[in-house]
Amino acid sequence: MKEQVHAAARAARTAAATLAVTNRAGKDAALHAMADALVAGTDAIVEANSVDVETARAAGTGEHVIDRLRLDADRIAAVADGLRDIAALPDPVGEVVRGSTLPNGLRMQQVRVPMGVIGMIYEGRPNVTADAAAICLKAGSAVLLRGSSSAARTNAAMIDVMRDALVASGLPADAIQQIPADDRSSATHLMQARGLVDLVIPRGGAGLIQAVVEQSTVPVIETGVGNCHVYVDADADLDMALSIVLNAKTHRTSVCNAAESLLVHKAVADSFLPRVVAALHEHGVTIHGDAAFRAVDAGVVPATDDDYAAEYLSLDISARVVESLDEAVAHIRAFSSGHTEAIVTSSLAASARFTAGVDSAAVMVNASTRFTDGGELGFGAEIGISTQKLHARGPMGLTEMTTTTYVVTGNGHIR
Amino acid sequence: MKEQVHAAARAARTAAATLAVTNRAGKDAALHAMADALVAGTDAIVEANSVDVETARAAGTGEHVIDRLRLDADRIAAVADGLRDIAALPDPVGEVVRGSTLPNGLRMQQVRVPMGVIGMIYEGRPNVTADAAAICLKAGSAVLLRGSSSAARTNAAMIDVMRDALVASGLPADAIQQIPADDRSSATHLMQARGLVDLVIPRGGAGLIQAVVEQSTVPVIETGVGNCHVYVDADADLDMALSIVLNAKTHRTSVCNAAESLLVHKAVADSFLPRVVAALHEHGVTIHGDAAFRAVDAGVVPATDDDYAAEYLSLDISARVVESLDEAVAHIRAFSSGHTEAIVTSSLAASARFTAGVDSAAVMVNASTRFTDGGELGFGAEIGISTQKLHARGPMGLTEMTTTTYVVTGNGHIR
Repeated sequence: MKEQVHAAARAARTAAATLAVTNRAGKDAALHAMADALVAGTDAIVEANSVDVETARAAGTGEHVIDRLRLDADRIAAVADGLRDIAALPDPVGEVVRGSTLPNGLRMQQVRVPMGVIGMIYEGRPNVTADAAAICLKAGSAVLLRGSSSAARTNAAMIDVMRDALVASGLPADAIQQIPADDRSSATHLMQARGLVDLVIPRGGAGLIQAVVEQSTVPVIETGVGNCHVYVDADADLDMALSIVLNAKTHRTSVCNAAESLLVHKAVADSFLPRVVAALHEHGVTIHGDAAFRAVDAGVVPATDDDYAAEYLSLDISARVVESLDEAVAHIRAFSSGHTEAIVTSSLAASARFTAGVDSAAVMVNASTRFTDGGELGFGAEIGISTQKLHARGPMGLTEMTTTTYVVTGNGHIR
Repeated sequence: MKEQVHAAARAARTAAATLAVTNRAGKDAALHAMADALVAGTDAIVEANSVDVETARAAGTGEHVIDRLRLDADRIAAVADGLRDIAALPDPVGEVVRGSTLPNGLRMQQVRVPMGVIGMIYEGRPNVTADAAAICLKAGSAVLLRGSSSAARTNAAMIDVMRDALVASGLPADAIQQIPADDRSSATHLMQARGLVDLVIPRGGAGLIQAVVEQSTVPVIETGVGNCHVYVDADADLDMALSIVLNAKTHRTSVCNAAESLLVHKAVADSFLPRVVAALHEHGVTIHGDAAFRAVDAGVVPATDDDYAAEYLSLDISARVVESLDEAVAHIRAFSSGHTEAIVTSSLAASARFTAGVDSAAVMVNASTRFTDGGELGFGAEIGISTQKLHARGPMGLTEMTTTTYVVTGNGHIR
């Protein structure tokens, strides 16, 4: 298996060298060909998918998970449209990040170039297969796709179709390759193929991400765990606060930018707590609260430190009254996963102190945590949301899938 | 030891929260105070250094290494001037990297913020201690300094002086801390303090860097190994080529941006090889060459693949004649460490193909490889040269020691 993964990575390196010198027109034509081919291949993909779905159902997989796995003609058409959207985005490769003429006359430019070979290790929905392939291609990199075994047939069918489209567009098929998912070791070999793979991105649950971070010798960008907070300040508009809390918690519970914890300044606790507790209960939310929250309603259950640290991904929220903005910041620094924090306040000073004080990928001022999203922020495409500080932090689009080179031009300059 | 390292990291996190909200004036005042304190503390530092030097000499350390370890009043004054230079540089924190108003009226800004806690694991010269402390401080981060045991007393004396200066400037002493070097495990605990340390930078030989890359669970920026190439193209000005080869190889042999390998296009081999072989021999360089080079002079020794892969850091160079520019690029892609490659050519097309084809942190066109250096490129300060693609590639200055946060401001926006 190690030799198989390394052979795939070496073939990807060769393909990457071709992609690196392919211009935008060539890459966009391939993306359109891939989109058309996915639609034309709908029958084969749906057939492969139905086997994956039946296998999952026979194994007792829940209907919620099966719904994420299922592809039909409409979903494939939506995936294809996503590829055409990526074709419409500007090419990040070749962007001059900075440049100057040095005192000695040397001309220096820092230019954006492709990453090379990117490994994706992911669970869940097969649309990630096409999205990741398209984003990496547009950014000039080859991609090694290691999806879950439960979607292996679906992924294989989609990848076959996309590879054929690459060849028809004059690009190397090995720019998009599937890494077998039937053996757990394939992921390990991928994340330890240092020198052959330039970057590994894990997308999935906390367990997957932790395993990749601990075992990888290839540089990793950690994505996604979100213990996001909403802090309602002493100077908050309480109607706005209620609307933001409800949206952040209940709009969609299974996503990393949903709120998991509510902090309320004591100055507004008396007026806000009864309203927010009643509204959250009305939406079916279980509140894990401190003594102040529990005093409002007997239905509030006690919160432990484990609650404050939890990413529930469900209709649960932890809740606390704080003495001050500084206590809110300290609580967030202690418990947050560094994804997104929101403050609701009318005070410019409070907004500035909160923004400078927390240490997370995104800070929302008077807006729902749900806006930390590549699409919402206008990046066009998103391969994940980084919760680490190195290289990329927050939603990662095409730019974040590139690196840079310094090009220095002289006329015989020596030191 | 683990508890000791983790306690230091926790104290550093607390200090980092203060640094994050310290403005440029406060940080620059501390840098000047540190510079003054190093000069005022010269006697104590030189005394500690003399013990380190005597201990190293008693252990049979070579005079070359001892010279790098030795500090005197002049060298300390130069280190202090370096700190004042860093104070004069712009503050990277707060820079708005991008910003826009989204269609729904949300205002989005990507803002540069401090990294948090940075671990430095390094060998060799004690001036790195002051440089790294100053660069991290200016970039708003706390630093944990794990130098070599051979410089431990010198480093302790410098760090004591700088910590006192921090306190006198109203900043927390724990923004600069020494990690004990008498136990090898301290480095391991530092690079595995995930969640407490945000970034580890190893600076030293290939063995140190390899160990950190393999064992670290904290994100790492790999620095410095340089197997740099000079390619003399068919369209090269041969006088210029000779001057660049000699400078890149012999100006300073122990540095990562020195040339280690020479590739010559066959079209100019007949005229260039005799000249370059004679000139390199005149400068005492041992040439490890292919058959074409050996045919020129019996003093050329045979080159193996190990030679082509070697970072000699000495008066040695590997040398080959290539059939074409493409063969030169393929050779470099196969053997380079991804640091710096140079092409000597008068052809715009050759320059463009070489630049796009190699996959290294820096490409020099008609200039010596020796220009890949933060000082030479005008960055003002440099903490190392990254040879990886993630986060920072090439010389790393203040900007590369920061991360970013998305600050999104609305007026009650929900999804």
